[in-house]
Amino acid sequence: MYTLIASSHPEEAFFFGRVAWFPQISEEDSMSLEALLHSIQPIDENARAAARDRQDRLTKPPQALGRLEELSIQLAGITGQALPRLIHKVILTMAGDHGVVAEGVSAYPQEVTEQMVLNFLSGGAAINVLARHVGARVVVVDMGVAARFEPQPDLVDKKVALGTQNMARGPAMSREQAVQALLGGAEVVDAEFAKGLDILGVGEMGIANTTPSTAIAAVLTGIPVERLAGHGTGIDISGLERKIAAVQRAIKVNQPDPTDALDVLAKVGGFEIGGMAGAMLAAAVHRRPVMVDGFISTAAALIAVGLAPQAKAYLISSHCSQERGHRLMLEWLGLKPLFDLDLRLGEGTGAALGISLADAACKILGEMATFDEAGVSGKA
Amino acid sequence: MYTLIASSHPEEAFFFGRVAWFPQISEEDSMSLEALLHSIQPIDENARAAARDRQDRLTKPPQALGRLEELSIQLAGITGQALPRLIHKVILTMAGDHGVVAEGVSAYPQEVTEQMVLNFLSGGAAINVLARHVGARVVVVDMGVAARFEPQPDLVDKKVALGTQNMARGPAMSREQAVQALLGGAEVVDAEFAKGLDILGVGEMGIANTTPSTAIAAVLTGIPVERLAGHGTGIDISGLERKIAAVQRAIKVNQPDPTDALDVLAKVGGFEIGGMAGAMLAAAVHRRPVMVDGFISTAAALIAVGLAPQAKAYLISSHCSQERGHRLMLEWLGLKPLFDLDLRLGEGTGAALGISLADAACKILGEMATFDEAGVSGKA
Repeated sequence: MYTLIASSHPEEAFFFGRVAWFPQISEEDSMSLEALLHSIQPIDENARAAARDRQDRLTKPPQALGRLEELSIQLAGITGQALPRLIHKVILTMAGDHGVVAEGVSAYPQEVTEQMVLNFLSGGAAINVLARHVGARVVVVDMGVAARFEPQPDLVDKKVALGTQNMARGPAMSREQAVQALLGGAEVVDAEFAKGLDILGVGEMGIANTTPSTAIAAVLTGIPVERLAGHGTGIDISGLERKIAAVQRAIKVNQPDPTDALDVLAKVGGFEIGGMAGAMLAAAVHRRPVMVDGFISTAAALIAVGLAPQAKAYLISSHCSQERGHRLMLEWLGLKPLFDLDLRLGEGTGAALGISLADAACKILGEMATFDEAGVSGKA
Repeated sequence: MYTLIASSHPEEAFFFGRVAWFPQISEEDSMSLEALLHSIQPIDENARAAARDRQDRLTKPPQALGRLEELSIQLAGITGQALPRLIHKVILTMAGDHGVVAEGVSAYPQEVTEQMVLNFLSGGAAINVLARHVGARVVVVDMGVAARFEPQPDLVDKKVALGTQNMARGPAMSREQAVQALLGGAEVVDAEFAKGLDILGVGEMGIANTTPSTAIAAVLTGIPVERLAGHGTGIDISGLERKIAAVQRAIKVNQPDPTDALDVLAKVGGFEIGGMAGAMLAAAVHRRPVMVDGFISTAAALIAVGLAPQAKAYLISSHCSQERGHRLMLEWLGLKPLFDLDLRLGEGTGAALGISLADAACKILGEMATFDEAGVSGKA
């Protein structure tokens, strides 16, 4: 059974130049994914205009707070609230393993993914520290770690499989698994939304996952692999050469279709990358801003935007990572990062700091006095 | 009476290539200023090394948190603590008026300085919002506003005079007044230090104060006025031309001596700029990091470093402002801003956001688990 997602929206398929096919998916999943992709509304121009108007009446020269003002206006448009407030801040840290690690593409052994998940759960990782700093809660999700965890209340189980297959020798996952990863990520956001979610940060952990991210970016943007591939967690030159070769082989072996983001996710993606993309789409459905983290998070954004171009308006880029290729991916998406602190850790660490800036932007909009209220003279 | 400050430190005078003369100052003030300038110690290399070592043992690839790691190490060196904690965060917002406003160099009338001071005191300005966001207290200081305030507990009175003289027609202030401004700023920091001060943000308010800041930068860096002067709060092209002409006239009329930062402050500076420079020096004496704000704050940093080059190690640049010339000033000082959000407001707003990053950096250093503690494997 095939479902042509874009069939009922020919104008979108025309406008965005993308047509997505979903072969070999159960009807139920297909319907869920279709609902996810077609429930995203345009941002609210009235709320944007109201926020813009208020910014110009606050006690400062117009535009003097630069990107904080733009950000507050974007957040108004996303949420549909003229004075958005970011009370409930949620950071997803989605973990998965990657069969391509067998190609010698990572500086760390695969077991580190599992060990870091336990570190997240005990609160000792960088994302725990930064989330506490910005007042966000961290939700750790097993999307497909190559280890079985004891059931524990703080670990969300959306495991698709015990790691992907080696994409350098065949598809990383099946198309059904790709859908499962996307819907799993979306379900996590639905559940968090029910608890309270005003802004979502999306990060990850997965040894070797800059490798599939590089492949996704190369396929979807058309930028050469050599310009996108970087040193990840710190591989040396020969490791980087192996990584480039593995990505090129994965693309050659699998021939992912750049007009079909689900095909790209299945053939050269990862479970946590699919989960992140699904989470981004679900946040957009709920009209909640998504703070994108680094290189891998941006690869997930490429998948999300490939599946539903209208999701892009809900994405905010927190930072430009030190990982080579990240800037090119952001430029391709048309996202301008808020800052550049030479981060290259992932987990959602950059997103956490970006969430703090978004919070600051909303407070500026909501809490500053206007010229009239404060009795301050305007321009001479 | 003349005091040659550098006389007892010929090696510094040689090393930094600066000799500062203090003519026509009372012996007491001269002694105070001399104490301020010569009590700044080098940063603590042992604390730096301990912080560097710990960063490399935390559960992340080495240097993966980029500038946050560097910042934590710098903060260790500044405070002399291997695990610095920034509990008490203080932002000084120092206000002053400028006789040069008569040259038509500002988009806003002079009364806005007074009105904004009242806005700061009632909590409605941008700096109040951002200071609350980052958990800092704002200390509002009248260094020389051209209005008399009712005495009020939250306004620190260090008024030198009711605004400076018009520097385009003569010195902005006397040399005694320059010393008074410096010592006034230092006294504010001493008082705040007694209450608890772990990091200092230094910002300002003063209609027309980008004009003296441009003059200070031009004299001390040698960069042409045309490359430094910007649109401030939003003057048009003819206003910018008047501003450039006013700065050039001020330099021509006063002939400030670029090797004597006190002379520069007196002839083409401002009371709040002197106060900020004195505050920076006092923070350095107390081994406390100084988060520099924007264009005017950086002009104050140029004065502080001109008076005491060893103060530079205590300065952190929060952001690069939209105001033309700021980047050149930062490069001249050798300071790399943490972020660039197109801010151009002053008040300490950029410094507030920078303080939050410094806090995050210290928490990373102090709260993250090490590889050993978390049982995470190292590099393969």
